[in-house]
Amino acid sequence: MKDASSRRGFLALTTSLGAALASCGGGDGGAPAEAPSRLGKPVSSYGERSRFSAERRFIAPTKTPEQAASLTPLQDSEGVITPSALHFERHHSGIPDLDPSVHELLLHGLVERPLRFSMDALKRMPSVSVIRFVECSGNSRSEWSKPAPTAQMSSGMASCSEWTGVPLRTVLDEAGLKPEAKWLICEGADACRMARSLPIEKALDDCLLVYGQNGEALRPEQGYPLRLLVPGWEGNINVKWLRVLKATAGPSETRDETSKYTDLMPDGSSRQFTFAMEAKSVITTPSGGQALPGPGFLEIRGLAWSGRGLIEKVEVSVDGGSTWEVAQLQEPRFPKAFTRFRLPWSWSGAETTIQSRATDETGYIQPTVQELVAVRGTESSYHNNGVKAWKVLADGSVTNV
Amino acid sequence: MKDASSRRGFLALTTSLGAALASCGGGDGGAPAEAPSRLGKPVSSYGERSRFSAERRFIAPTKTPEQAASLTPLQDSEGVITPSALHFERHHSGIPDLDPSVHELLLHGLVERPLRFSMDALKRMPSVSVIRFVECSGNSRSEWSKPAPTAQMSSGMASCSEWTGVPLRTVLDEAGLKPEAKWLICEGADACRMARSLPIEKALDDCLLVYGQNGEALRPEQGYPLRLLVPGWEGNINVKWLRVLKATAGPSETRDETSKYTDLMPDGSSRQFTFAMEAKSVITTPSGGQALPGPGFLEIRGLAWSGRGLIEKVEVSVDGGSTWEVAQLQEPRFPKAFTRFRLPWSWSGAETTIQSRATDETGYIQPTVQELVAVRGTESSYHNNGVKAWKVLADGSVTNV
Repeated sequence: MKDASSRRGFLALTTSLGAALASCGGGDGGAPAEAPSRLGKPVSSYGERSRFSAERRFIAPTKTPEQAASLTPLQDSEGVITPSALHFERHHSGIPDLDPSVHELLLHGLVERPLRFSMDALKRMPSVSVIRFVECSGNSRSEWSKPAPTAQMSSGMASCSEWTGVPLRTVLDEAGLKPEAKWLICEGADACRMARSLPIEKALDDCLLVYGQNGEALRPEQGYPLRLLVPGWEGNINVKWLRVLKATAGPSETRDETSKYTDLMPDGSSRQFTFAMEAKSVITTPSGGQALPGPGFLEIRGLAWSGRGLIEKVEVSVDGGSTWEVAQLQEPRFPKAFTRFRLPWSWSGAETTIQSRATDETGYIQPTVQELVAVRGTESSYHNNGVKAWKVLADGSVTNV
Repeated sequence: MKDASSRRGFLALTTSLGAALASCGGGDGGAPAEAPSRLGKPVSSYGERSRFSAERRFIAPTKTPEQAASLTPLQDSEGVITPSALHFERHHSGIPDLDPSVHELLLHGLVERPLRFSMDALKRMPSVSVIRFVECSGNSRSEWSKPAPTAQMSSGMASCSEWTGVPLRTVLDEAGLKPEAKWLICEGADACRMARSLPIEKALDDCLLVYGQNGEALRPEQGYPLRLLVPGWEGNINVKWLRVLKATAGPSETRDETSKYTDLMPDGSSRQFTFAMEAKSVITTPSGGQALPGPGFLEIRGLAWSGRGLIEKVEVSVDGGSTWEVAQLQEPRFPKAFTRFRLPWSWSGAETTIQSRATDETGYIQPTVQELVAVRGTESSYHNNGVKAWKVLADGSVTNV
């Protein structure tokens, strides 16, 4: 393994970490502070967090807690995996309590052989595991007009897991798509039967019928026992509690692709089927709501992702956008997945603004919010992937801009 | 994404899955079984598993539950990540309850500048995240004489996480190692002050001071708030609740590298400092304790890993070792990490024995248990990486051989 810090970064650390170390007491060869002498807790069948770890999803207020969302605490995240217990949620009628021994997937419509699959049958089929993000297209809705104060509030409707399941193409091939089948209506088993229309080209490309998440069974909030994973496309079409797939000639024009999940433009028209989540990034450390203990070295860290493939580059500015430095990317990178970026920084103690911008493998560069607004106005609601800036005040506190 | 099944595998599926599908009821275009019509559960701040997911660590019986072990249910695993709640445990005096605002790491001995690090200071330093396995050298102890009946019991003291932390080299460079410093004594804050001696070459290579695991804070069972990660080396030297590092000229000859964690050879001598975990694999599906519903297609799945680097190849035999087929490996692969392998199989219904053998990037091939015993006898206790076989009986039940 190579050292993560660039040589320049490490020198900056050596120069400036002295103060931080001295403030920790310096070294005298004596014993460090804490050292219990009694036996600790025993082993357990399913572990829990330390009582000192209080990271939690933020629950956005709604009239009914079943039609609601919760946001991942990105400011506390490490690496690129989101713990399943902290994966963001967006439910339209709550989390159904499904028994996998009864749950079935029906595949019908314009196919040669309508089929039903039990969970046992799906689990016998050839499987793959991939690390991919899922992001609600309503993520960063706040940024259209009133920038949110923390990374969780601004960007926390995005999470990343190792997903395991069966390629959707496998079951489509098994059923035999008729030539006129151009869309797949995908319906969940939640009470509202949340449904979306998926173009057949994407269905045959990289979609998965997912039953595993981060090494164990899919979590109920993510669709247990079966969800559709549509890599890189807006979260809503990654239908949870998947129950019916129907091959059709045209889209179904469901509620969630007409009155919702369309982008209202300044001329009053709506863009429909804007599926891909474009390249985006957010600095998680330091980010809004955090406080720096004082001037000196720290590592700027953040997350970047693109629904189009790999993140190729993340640039960071620590001077309000005047100059940009290329951050180090955590390797190996995965397409359509969180990519952790890191940049050493020695903070002078003066007030400044920090921000990041991502470039993906298509060459697309994350725009500013102003650039987005110039094209789409402020009523677009969905798909805000603008650059997010944080202000570092002289007292070390970090706020939104 | 490429389809995970080889063309040959997919054809086998198409040919033989018919029976499985028919047994699921066939397709008639009717609605699938379950479809709740009431609102489900609301969002939550920290999620839990489905009540239908009962995977749990197996707790090995010991006189005191604090000096104990628990094993990962590998037969239920998906992909390559082990959920933190199911990561195996091996504690020598229980899990200490450490407050990260008080916990410190002391680095002293043969260094120019003895140093103390608070957790806050460590978290400001340049960090990396890597996916790596940890395996207890006592894993598969059963296989020396009495093969265990399940993958969990035979091989479950191995787990794999995304770990985040500071390269050990960074703090050693900061302190300035004296030329005579050849070992690092690493001591935990558990009541027994579990300690091991680490050669300085490895300390300067790829070791990490880890505070993050699978996207959140390190779990208490894995050393919260700080553990030493020594990639590819036996679990015991990955010291948890890390509190003291002391640079020395020679090893410390602690209890856990003399009376324990040494390999007793047939001539009565003991091999000491046998650190690296050699290439190993185990079939997780189908594995002991599971039952096949009947003849036909299924995917054989398993895990392989090597403390020397990448897994290059996994071969699977479904005929008692007469012939071997090369399995597909989950990409991307990571060095010193779990690698998922998969092979399509159409079971005829006849009794047979299945097994896997791994080859790592050094060219090392996982040996049979008989080959291990021929060299090391049966009292070696640690470091059993022999091939593990499962017997599939005609009634579909799977047992150990």
